[in-house]
Amino acid sequence: VFPERPKIAVVGAGALGGYYGARLAQSGHDVHFLLRSDYEAVRRNGWAVRSFVGDFQLGPDRAHVYNDPREMPPADLVLVTLKTTANDQYEPLIRPLLKDGTAILTIQNGLGNEDRLAELFGGSRILGGMAFVCINRDGPGIIHHIDHGTIRLGEFRGGLSDRASRIAKLFNDSRVTCEVLEDLRWGRWSKLVWNIPFNGLGAVLDLTTDRLLADAGSVQLVTDIMREVIEAAEAQGLRMPADMIDRQITHTRTMGPYRSSMQIDRQEGRPLEVESILGEPFRQARAAGIKTPKLEMLYEMARLADRMPLRLPHRVE
Amino acid sequence: VFPERPKIAVVGAGALGGYYGARLAQSGHDVHFLLRSDYEAVRRNGWAVRSFVGDFQLGPDRAHVYNDPREMPPADLVLVTLKTTANDQYEPLIRPLLKDGTAILTIQNGLGNEDRLAELFGGSRILGGMAFVCINRDGPGIIHHIDHGTIRLGEFRGGLSDRASRIAKLFNDSRVTCEVLEDLRWGRWSKLVWNIPFNGLGAVLDLTTDRLLADAGSVQLVTDIMREVIEAAEAQGLRMPADMIDRQITHTRTMGPYRSSMQIDRQEGRPLEVESILGEPFRQARAAGIKTPKLEMLYEMARLADRMPLRLPHRVE
Repeated sequence: VFPERPKIAVVGAGALGGYYGARLAQSGHDVHFLLRSDYEAVRRNGWAVRSFVGDFQLGPDRAHVYNDPREMPPADLVLVTLKTTANDQYEPLIRPLLKDGTAILTIQNGLGNEDRLAELFGGSRILGGMAFVCINRDGPGIIHHIDHGTIRLGEFRGGLSDRASRIAKLFNDSRVTCEVLEDLRWGRWSKLVWNIPFNGLGAVLDLTTDRLLADAGSVQLVTDIMREVIEAAEAQGLRMPADMIDRQITHTRTMGPYRSSMQIDRQEGRPLEVESILGEPFRQARAAGIKTPKLEMLYEMARLADRMPLRLPHRVE
Repeated sequence: VFPERPKIAVVGAGALGGYYGARLAQSGHDVHFLLRSDYEAVRRNGWAVRSFVGDFQLGPDRAHVYNDPREMPPADLVLVTLKTTANDQYEPLIRPLLKDGTAILTIQNGLGNEDRLAELFGGSRILGGMAFVCINRDGPGIIHHIDHGTIRLGEFRGGLSDRASRIAKLFNDSRVTCEVLEDLRWGRWSKLVWNIPFNGLGAVLDLTTDRLLADAGSVQLVTDIMREVIEAAEAQGLRMPADMIDRQITHTRTMGPYRSSMQIDRQEGRPLEVESILGEPFRQARAAGIKTPKLEMLYEMARLADRMPLRLPHRVE
C-alpha cells in the first residue's frame, strides 16, 4: 500500500512543480526536487513563493535539490511536472527514482503523457493529474502563485484507488485542494475543451482570452473548435455536459486579459506544447473516425508558429 | 464604342496603379492619377519605375496628378487600384470621373469589388482584372517592379466584348501583357485558390510561401484550403483543372521566400484585405451550401490578426 509519509520526488521543478512541491514540503513532507536552470538559486536560497493566499518561503535546508536524478533517493511518489516538450527525457530523469511500488503522477498538459509513461514504466504505476492554477516564475526560485490551485487526479487505468485517495490527502493536508477523478480520460478531455482553443489560438495569434472573445465571429470560432473537441471526446464514450461550451465561455470572460501558457511560451521563445495539447487530441479524434478540420488546422498552424517565436515588444495597439 | 485613345483615370495610384498607369502614359496615353500620400512627390518628380525589364521615368509634365477627384476630367476608362480596405470610398472617388460610356476596370484583390461597383454605377460599366505581378513601393513615387506583370481582364457580366479587347490592346501596346477572359468569375476564383492559403496563412503566421511549404504537414494544410476553395468554385458552376493544386504548389516552390501582399500589409501595420480575399469567398461558399471550415477559420483568424499588426523586427531565427 501507498505509505502515509512517502518520499516524494518532483521531476522538472519549474513554477508548477516548485509550487506544489514546496506546499508538500511546507507541511512536513520529504520532498526532493530535480531542477535544471534554477538549480543553483534554489540550492542557495530555497523557494520563495508569492501567493494570493499568503506568501511563504521554503529554506534551502528543507528544499532538497538536485541536478542529477542519479543522486536522488528512490521515491514512493514521483511528481512529473516537466513541460511536455521534454517528454523524451522521461527515461533518464525518472528511471533512477523508481523502486517497487513507486507511483508516478504526471501533472502535465494535454494527452499522451500517461500513455508514454506507462509504456516505459508500466501502467500500474501511473496516475495523471490536472492543475487548475495560475502560476508564473518571477525569477530563479521565485514563484508567483496568482490564482486558483486545485488538482484533479486519477488512475491511468481508470477507477478509484486507495493510492489515489492517499495522494489526494497529501495535497489536501498541504493547502492544495485535490479531488480524485474516477475517469481520468474524462478529466483530460474536458480540460482540453478549454485548452485547445485558448492555448492554440492564443499562441498562434498572440492574443489573450478576452481578445479571442471580443466579437461574435471570434466567439463562433472558439465555439466551433470546442464543439469538435467535444465530438472527439464523445466518440470515445465520454459524455460532456450540454451547456459546457456556454459555461466555459462565460467563465473565461471573468478571467480578463488572460495569457494561456502556450501564448506565454511563444512570447518567451520557448517550445510550444503543440503535440500534447493539439497533436495527440487530433490524432485520437482521427483514430475515432471524427472529422475535426479546425482542430487539425490549429494543430498545423501551431506547429508552424512553434518554429517562429515572437519577441516582445512587437505590438501596435 | 470604346475610343481608341481614351482618357484614363487611375484611382488609388499606389505601386500597382502607378506602375500600370505610368506604362500607359509612357506609350502616349492620356493618364490622370488620383493619389493620396504620394501626391506631392509625384507632382514634383513624376514616377520613377525600377523594373526588371528596364527602368523608366515618367516626368511630372506627363504625370497628371490630383488629390481630389472633383478636379479631374471625366474619363473613358477608370482603373481602380485601391486597396479593397478602401472600397467604402468608391462613391466619392469614382462618381466625379464618370460620363456616358465610362468603363470602370477594377484591378483589385479578391471577390465582391465588381459587384459593389455595379451596385453603385451600373453593371454595364464594369470590368474586372487581375494583375499577376510582383511590385513594391520603394518610396514616394518610386516603384519597384520586381517580376511578372500580366493582366487578365473580363467583363463583369461575362462574355467577350469589343471594349474588353480594346482595353487589352491598350495594355499590350504599352509593354503590359494583357489577356481577355471570357469568364471573369472563373479567373477570380482560380486566383483565389492561391491567394487564400498563401495570403491568409502568410499574414496570420507571418510566414513566407517557402515556410508554408516546408514540410508535409503544412503542405497538407495548404492543400486542404485550396481544395475547399475549388469545391466552392465548382459549386458555382466553375470547373477547375484536376491538377491545379499540384501545379500551384510546384509553381510556388519556384518563388523562393515570397511574402504575400497580406503578409507585407501586416508587417507594415496596414489594414489587411480580409473581406475581399477571405470573407467574401467564404460567404459565397456558404451561400452555395458548401462547407469550408478551414477557409472559415482562416477568415476569422485573419480578422483577429488584422487588429493586431506586427512590428518588425520581431523574429528569432
